[in-house]
Amino acid sequence: MQKNTAWLQADLQQLPKDYRTQLINSITGFKPANLVGTRDVQGQTNLAIFSSAVHLGADPALMGLVSRPFTPTVSRHTLNNMKELGYFTLNHVHESFYEQAHQTSARYPKEVSEFAATGLTEEYIGDFPAPFVAEAKVKIGLKLIDMLPITYNNTHFIIGEIVFLQVPTDCLEADGKLNLTQAGTVAVSGLDTYHRTEQLGRLPYAKAK
Amino acid sequence: MQKNTAWLQADLQQLPKDYRTQLINSITGFKPANLVGTRDVQGQTNLAIFSSAVHLGADPALMGLVSRPFTPTVSRHTLNNMKELGYFTLNHVHESFYEQAHQTSARYPKEVSEFAATGLTEEYIGDFPAPFVAEAKVKIGLKLIDMLPITYNNTHFIIGEIVFLQVPTDCLEADGKLNLTQAGTVAVSGLDTYHRTEQLGRLPYAKAK
Repeated sequence: MQKNTAWLQADLQQLPKDYRTQLINSITGFKPANLVGTRDVQGQTNLAIFSSAVHLGADPALMGLVSRPFTPTVSRHTLNNMKELGYFTLNHVHESFYEQAHQTSARYPKEVSEFAATGLTEEYIGDFPAPFVAEAKVKIGLKLIDMLPITYNNTHFIIGEIVFLQVPTDCLEADGKLNLTQAGTVAVSGLDTYHRTEQLGRLPYAKAK
Repeated sequence: MQKNTAWLQADLQQLPKDYRTQLINSITGFKPANLVGTRDVQGQTNLAIFSSAVHLGADPALMGLVSRPFTPTVSRHTLNNMKELGYFTLNHVHESFYEQAHQTSARYPKEVSEFAATGLTEEYIGDFPAPFVAEAKVKIGLKLIDMLPITYNNTHFIIGEIVFLQVPTDCLEADGKLNLTQAGTVAVSGLDTYHRTEQLGRLPYAKAK
């Protein structure tokens, strides 16, 4: 029989901070791994890994992203750039560069671009103003629509509208579905663990019997 | 050289609806697979698969969830139950029952519980009012905190506070991280594709060099 460990709310509050952070960050399940590319109006670029991208809707094509908390001591270059420029990019993280992608989470000063610091390559496509990651096979250009404040912990729910999308043709299935396993896109768990995937199955649209 | 397919916003809007739905649902990357358990005050239970759970914060322990759009013709049993009871559960989907989990997305009438319809087992733990899924190894009990309206497409961002958590002891690492590969938790892509995972690596906390 399975042995379990359980916590009530008061137990969670009494856990050591680092332990609770590891635990709570891993319980939602597997998360997407994306690099968010931004720049300020002076041209200084920033690249940051986010595991909180979420589908909001297909028509209009909208996506959400949870920011980390604003605190008096930490500056949020990504969010400031998004507000300044009004645009940002989302780029899939693949097995071939997940270590470089993780390294973007280090706290670099604003004058250091995480592109340069991690060896990933800035790419500009057409007249889209924010930088893409050349190494990413799936590239999304977004227009900032809103930042809903989540007052409970000083985070924001960022809403972006998809205005550009590029995917590898050989990963695009006949009905529009993207084969992420074939693209080599990784999944994240917790704060720091990366996974490749193997497809178990694609299921038909479910109908009540 | 990689061959790409690209769309601008106007191109996306002109795609056939089903194609666009498949495409846009797959571009955020891998998603968590969770079953949300609810019941109304009369005791009628509901179970629904969600791929939009997102970590909001560890202290307090908060989680977000995106609802599907409210329309005049579709009733949203899960959301109505959450509001009535004030509590809901989140349960990991594992390889052993992902087909049953997917089947909860069929449109059953309110008087049919998806637990009964799919053969998954209701479980009540302590005095927590909403039903857990007995087959799930990771079980989360949440208190409904807020439902932020996303006016752009009539969806909601549901915020829950974690008031109960149960995990398999053998999947819990020494520092609080949960090993989701060992738990057999699956990852989703698009609307209907399920994946097992293989751990590539756990990386150290990133520091600027």
